[in-house]
Amino acid sequence: MYVAILAGGVGTRLWPRSREAMPKQFSDVIGSGRTMIQTTVDRLDGMVDISDIYIITGRNYRSLVLEQLPGLPPGNVIVEPSGRNTAPAIGLACAHLHHRDPNGIIALLHADHIIQDVAAYRAVLQQAELAAQADYLTVLGITPTSPHTGYGYIKRTGEPLPASGNLPVYAVDSFLEKPDRATAEGFLASGSYYWNAGNFICRVERMLAEFERQLPELYTGLMTIGDSLGTPQSERVLDRIWETLTPISIDHGVMEHAERLAVIPLQAGWNDVGSWDALEEVLPMDKDGNILVQGETLLVDSRGLIVSGGKRLIALVGVEDLVVVDSGDALLIGHKKQIQKIKEVVQRLRAGERLDLL
Amino acid sequence: MYVAILAGGVGTRLWPRSREAMPKQFSDVIGSGRTMIQTTVDRLDGMVDISDIYIITGRNYRSLVLEQLPGLPPGNVIVEPSGRNTAPAIGLACAHLHHRDPNGIIALLHADHIIQDVAAYRAVLQQAELAAQADYLTVLGITPTSPHTGYGYIKRTGEPLPASGNLPVYAVDSFLEKPDRATAEGFLASGSYYWNAGNFICRVERMLAEFERQLPELYTGLMTIGDSLGTPQSERVLDRIWETLTPISIDHGVMEHAERLAVIPLQAGWNDVGSWDALEEVLPMDKDGNILVQGETLLVDSRGLIVSGGKRLIALVGVEDLVVVDSGDALLIGHKKQIQKIKEVVQRLRAGERLDLL
Repeated sequence: MYVAILAGGVGTRLWPRSREAMPKQFSDVIGSGRTMIQTTVDRLDGMVDISDIYIITGRNYRSLVLEQLPGLPPGNVIVEPSGRNTAPAIGLACAHLHHRDPNGIIALLHADHIIQDVAAYRAVLQQAELAAQADYLTVLGITPTSPHTGYGYIKRTGEPLPASGNLPVYAVDSFLEKPDRATAEGFLASGSYYWNAGNFICRVERMLAEFERQLPELYTGLMTIGDSLGTPQSERVLDRIWETLTPISIDHGVMEHAERLAVIPLQAGWNDVGSWDALEEVLPMDKDGNILVQGETLLVDSRGLIVSGGKRLIALVGVEDLVVVDSGDALLIGHKKQIQKIKEVVQRLRAGERLDLL
Repeated sequence: MYVAILAGGVGTRLWPRSREAMPKQFSDVIGSGRTMIQTTVDRLDGMVDISDIYIITGRNYRSLVLEQLPGLPPGNVIVEPSGRNTAPAIGLACAHLHHRDPNGIIALLHADHIIQDVAAYRAVLQQAELAAQADYLTVLGITPTSPHTGYGYIKRTGEPLPASGNLPVYAVDSFLEKPDRATAEGFLASGSYYWNAGNFICRVERMLAEFERQLPELYTGLMTIGDSLGTPQSERVLDRIWETLTPISIDHGVMEHAERLAVIPLQAGWNDVGSWDALEEVLPMDKDGNILVQGETLLVDSRGLIVSGGKRLIALVGVEDLVVVDSGDALLIGHKKQIQKIKEVVQRLRAGERLDLL
């Protein structure tokens, strides 16, 4: 099994730790001592060789990837010339893999996802590999822990498919858009719905066949790029073709109407840390409900804090329910319940041309 | 008139801006662009020549004083070998002045007091000089604006003394200790009580006569120090005598039982910035009740803040009633109503031997 890790996003919801020059996947968001992309690779240790791991990212991040993953062959960094949504990015990864090993199986993962139960995760990945060998296009379905309205959902059919391996594999009934609250509550109660976190495992040829059937123009472009790989023209071909590719998501472009779709439930403490308050779901609290992610803190009568410090001591006196993040050049102090308004900070920095702080 | 400015204090209540190595009098606490000691001297501009101004401070702060007051003659920095309360410090200043000009008048002021109405302040100082010429030991009585329980009070007698000058000068009825709340409310209502902020104006000989009468041993020590001034032994004599002097406050040691005491009301927006929330009394608020003292801030739906920033942007999102202070090496985030608990921060830094942060 090959792994292709999507690492091209520029998350601003974890500002000021996640920045355009240093997006969250290259940061140690949870204070583990490893960046998110390093942890993503660590998680595959002993299961997938580093030379079989590919990273899809923007040109600006190529050197960061090589710096943070010193064992990675430089040729395994696949550069997207620009962000054109997930279908072209995944198609590009498949074109590369197909060039190397037409019979390979590819696991498409993300560089900024947290998994708490790594053993459970690895078991699911291995089950997904078995399903891929049986020519299923397998998606990991995150067992929902709340009626979240920020994710798309996957509905499974009733009974597990007859398949090898120990874990249940279900046929996918349908991919569903982000629901409203009441609908999400129904999904959660039913037990037949999963969050779609965009993790797919399949034979490379299986994915490319779906591109060919559903997105023929995109497929043609990918084949042109694929044919140029290993030639002196490859970069020039990529740059020329890339800008012509339709920017469409893999869900809309491929998954919603793909054939032989299977879902394997993943119940392993998955989290994509979409905002600072999500750290409450992945990190332990002290007895006063504080999460002290990193840095030196001194707390006096303070509760419910999330503190991601930097090099300087942060003294907190008589405060509650704050998010505090010190990135060295910027400092965020926000109320936990209003932390989504961080978007406005980023917008105003952009409008004020404080690009150094974006 | 000579001026002696007491600048030996080490305020920790404005931590982390005020530090042992850089107490508040050497910091720009209100974001004016000038430190408190510079502002104290600026306030006397054109009224007292810089060569007639003396600074009493600790040995560690001598170079800071000379750096911040470049026009000050180096000989005008009077070093206290150690902190021994206000009576020895004031006595030492008087010994120096007496050595230079036995007939001089001395105004004893503080390096860390804020005055908003400088014209009113200067008029009161000039009136105090007139009273000193008439041999009164004059104290500035801060007209109280609240029933404060943190200051000693001065009670005046009923009618102004017959004296030259335009402003009223009253005889002092008594010096009073810090009152309880109900007593302070009575003081405020009566209109005959003032806060004692420790600012005294008198003939140097008048003050020394009170030392001689009330603190004869201290007086003898001061005279020995005074006699050595200008000789090669002066520093050695000071160090030897100083450690024998009784550490007592000028109020207890001298003022409470002094003769010919007068008080001149000072209603000029006086403030000693005893804690961060005191900035509300001296600095303007924006329409949302925020005081942005210095540094770059970006506020989203935030109210009632006091922010004293440093070199980095501080983004505040959905927060209220916080004090935020960034000193570069430390960061304070406290609730305005609980900011007195900053004492515990300082105690714990001391206990943890984080002397670099004190």
